[in-house]
Amino acid sequence: MEISADELRNVLNNVVKKHKDLKTEGFALESCRSMIALMDTDGSGKINLEEFKHLWTKIKSWQNIFKQYDTDHSGTINSYEMRNAVKDAGFHLNNQLYDIITMRYADRTMNIEFDSFICCFVRLEGMFRAFRAFDKDGDGIIKLNVFEWLQLTMYA
Amino acid sequence: MEISADELRNVLNNVVKKHKDLKTEGFALESCRSMIALMDTDGSGKINLEEFKHLWTKIKSWQNIFKQYDTDHSGTINSYEMRNAVKDAGFHLNNQLYDIITMRYADRTMNIEFDSFICCFVRLEGMFRAFRAFDKDGDGIIKLNVFEWLQLTMYA
Repeated sequence: MEISADELRNVLNNVVKKHKDLKTEGFALESCRSMIALMDTDGSGKINLEEFKHLWTKIKSWQNIFKQYDTDHSGTINSYEMRNAVKDAGFHLNNQLYDIITMRYADRTMNIEFDSFICCFVRLEGMFRAFRAFDKDGDGIIKLNVFEWLQLTMYA
Repeated sequence: MEISADELRNVLNNVVKKHKDLKTEGFALESCRSMIALMDTDGSGKINLEEFKHLWTKIKSWQNIFKQYDTDHSGTINSYEMRNAVKDAGFHLNNQLYDIITMRYADRTMNIEFDSFICCFVRLEGMFRAFRAFDKDGDGIIKLNVFEWLQLTMYA
């Protein structure tokens, strides 16, 4: 059994519809394609049941973090809360990266809706994993030629 | 004057609505946020008029390529046509990258709609530019630590 971006979108949107406490216009197909790409570790273009289970476990745990930081029950979190949410999920970033994330994923009122929050976390997880996979000698530096660079960044 | 992702989305969707020969469900907000990120060379979170003009010129020229390859006038192009379209736009890729692009941007019938086509080209352009900017000594290899890697890939 393999899951496509369309199918993932249906599953995710059926779930968020039931959670009135999460503000979102739903997951865009483009977001789900990006998620499939980032979770698709065997390069099949879809995710298998194992990859879906991994994604699902992550989403449930990130949803708990989101709800915990949405202290005013607005259904969104602000950029300050986002910073702590990212830390709680175990991602260690610098200040510049926190700013970049807010700029990329916040809406025009500088708040982060649930679908953007999940997209951001999926990408963070995917990009940390890609870095570790390429840093074979573990020295904290990766060396890439242009084709390796494009292979990692175009399928995201 | 600066242009946000919402505004870019309105502009793009107003244009594609007038072109009945381009198959698309319209540009998703997520796609437009990604485009803003990739074109936002001064890191303001929006694009200025200069950056918008650059994007617009590119989109018009890519639209011409798209129409040229859509020989059966289906409003989409297939993965074989995509390969030639990418070449015509001046991007030199290897076979693995052509496959990756199809997997990432094609719909379930393996055709590429106009909005996905443009998103793919914006990302290719952005990623080639990012590589060149980092390859200061021009040796064709970039070296990145994890923060540099995330700065380049999270804002995309």
